[in-house]
Amino acid sequence: MKPYVIGLDLGGTNSVFGIVDANANVIAETSVKTRGHGPVEQYVADCVEALKVIIDKVGGIDKIQGMGIGAPNGNYYTNCIEYAPNLPWGDGKIPLGQMFSDALGIPVAMTNDANAAAMGEMAYGAAKGMKNFIMITLGTGVGSGIVCDGKMVYGSDGLAGELGHVRVKADGRECGCGRKGCLETYCSATGVARTAREILTTTDTPTLLREIPLDQIESKDVSIAAGKGDEVAKSIMDFTGRLLGSACADFACFNSPEAFIFFGGLVKAGDLIMDPIRKGYDENILKCYKGKAKMLVSQLDDAKAAVLGASALAWEL
Amino acid sequence: MKPYVIGLDLGGTNSVFGIVDANANVIAETSVKTRGHGPVEQYVADCVEALKVIIDKVGGIDKIQGMGIGAPNGNYYTNCIEYAPNLPWGDGKIPLGQMFSDALGIPVAMTNDANAAAMGEMAYGAAKGMKNFIMITLGTGVGSGIVCDGKMVYGSDGLAGELGHVRVKADGRECGCGRKGCLETYCSATGVARTAREILTTTDTPTLLREIPLDQIESKDVSIAAGKGDEVAKSIMDFTGRLLGSACADFACFNSPEAFIFFGGLVKAGDLIMDPIRKGYDENILKCYKGKAKMLVSQLDDAKAAVLGASALAWEL
Repeated sequence: MKPYVIGLDLGGTNSVFGIVDANANVIAETSVKTRGHGPVEQYVADCVEALKVIIDKVGGIDKIQGMGIGAPNGNYYTNCIEYAPNLPWGDGKIPLGQMFSDALGIPVAMTNDANAAAMGEMAYGAAKGMKNFIMITLGTGVGSGIVCDGKMVYGSDGLAGELGHVRVKADGRECGCGRKGCLETYCSATGVARTAREILTTTDTPTLLREIPLDQIESKDVSIAAGKGDEVAKSIMDFTGRLLGSACADFACFNSPEAFIFFGGLVKAGDLIMDPIRKGYDENILKCYKGKAKMLVSQLDDAKAAVLGASALAWEL
Repeated sequence: MKPYVIGLDLGGTNSVFGIVDANANVIAETSVKTRGHGPVEQYVADCVEALKVIIDKVGGIDKIQGMGIGAPNGNYYTNCIEYAPNLPWGDGKIPLGQMFSDALGIPVAMTNDANAAAMGEMAYGAAKGMKNFIMITLGTGVGSGIVCDGKMVYGSDGLAGELGHVRVKADGRECGCGRKGCLETYCSATGVARTAREILTTTDTPTLLREIPLDQIESKDVSIAAGKGDEVAKSIMDFTGRLLGSACADFACFNSPEAFIFFGGLVKAGDLIMDPIRKGYDENILKCYKGKAKMLVSQLDDAKAAVLGASALAWEL
């Protein structure tokens, strides 16, 4: 095993590269704008040019085990980015894994952001040593990565682990996926803001949230107000957490995990969100699983989590 | 690899043993009453005595790879039956796997009935060659066995795969598990009979089902009436199938299976139940999974399925 891996956090705006050691230290970092390179071949060439500088810093490519890419719609099986609407290379399959592998001469693996997050927790974070757990990422949407018997669940097509689209309310909120009541319409950052707007427009209870223009309320504002003891904000956290915990109680019926690990802005609220999650879980979990799964917060530094998660893929190469 | 395995279908009444070859032929069979042996040690001794007769028939123990046990609350990790209320050996952990292994001198593995069914389909039936699928068994309850990347999902404690207890209706029917709205309260044989009784007591629509005393209606009666074109019975099949198909649409978010395989009395109704299952699935499946998973009926002969499923465990030993 070589001492380092490369992680690429490929976002719609920036492509962030890190060279990482087995103890989750990001030894060297660089980044490139994701857009403005023209064809994807040029993007890869420009990335490799930037990468070479930091690869030389750590002693050359021979020190590097491989590279992992965390990207929206990144498919582990095909090593392609598939139909990612927020990336600049059109609506097809982009064989980015193979392209980087050819350019760098090392193996490259790819998966989506939430799976990469789960791999990161398993390699360096809260899931170190765990064989069965579920990662839940709470961002603009709700993502998930499922690990069974120490292996990421990719499913028949590489697209397994979409727990944000499990429906938690019959005839619930409309979801971007075209269906109704998906978990992410309630428990994503967007969902929390939606809950806040619903409460503010249908009640006249006083709350700090009324100081913010209705269409500008964000999940973070709710967390902050809840932290100040605002009752309405606390009730939103409670509603969100309990619903998420109750959903996790159903998820447990799948792989009876030893832990659920939560990542994202919302969990920065600490016990304000984790307590309701635990309550929702405990009140709804099937007896044979009771008291077994821990509800944990990600142990990876937010700023580095995406690069670390991507890099974790490469330890298996 | 030796030519045969032994399967034990351990039920509350009978313990059925079969010696099975790689082509799902049950070469020899014997059975023993599960009760009336006194302590479990005597049960094992009596089983082994009966087994020896059929083992000799196939050329002796050297021809046998191992033995698999399918049992209520059978735990793969501990090789024990854990807290099975319908078995005669009390409320603890019974190390039946080790006991049979010691007595026979071959490796023995154990799991619950639904997992054994999944293993059976994978070794001999509809899931042959599949790496990712979900088995749904529709009996008195609803059981499930989940296979990811060719491996049974046992979870952190051996108790994974309880999809019958995923809740499908908020504040739905009371379940034996103490919670409400579990899938099995609607889609088990018991659930179908419950639906029938609900309709018969809350409407006065004429139906063949009224010829049966209300408290004696079974799932099978509904299937038979539906087969004769009875509209009420057909509507019950439709309701049950659509609900099950819709639940499977959520299950797909876990491991994006290439198939769901259904087993049990209810699927004997053929298209009368499979069509609504497919409709419920297609109408509710997330776009990225659309058209991918097949909805299949078990290919194992009902009478032999449990023994075959148990035996399939032993090919891995």
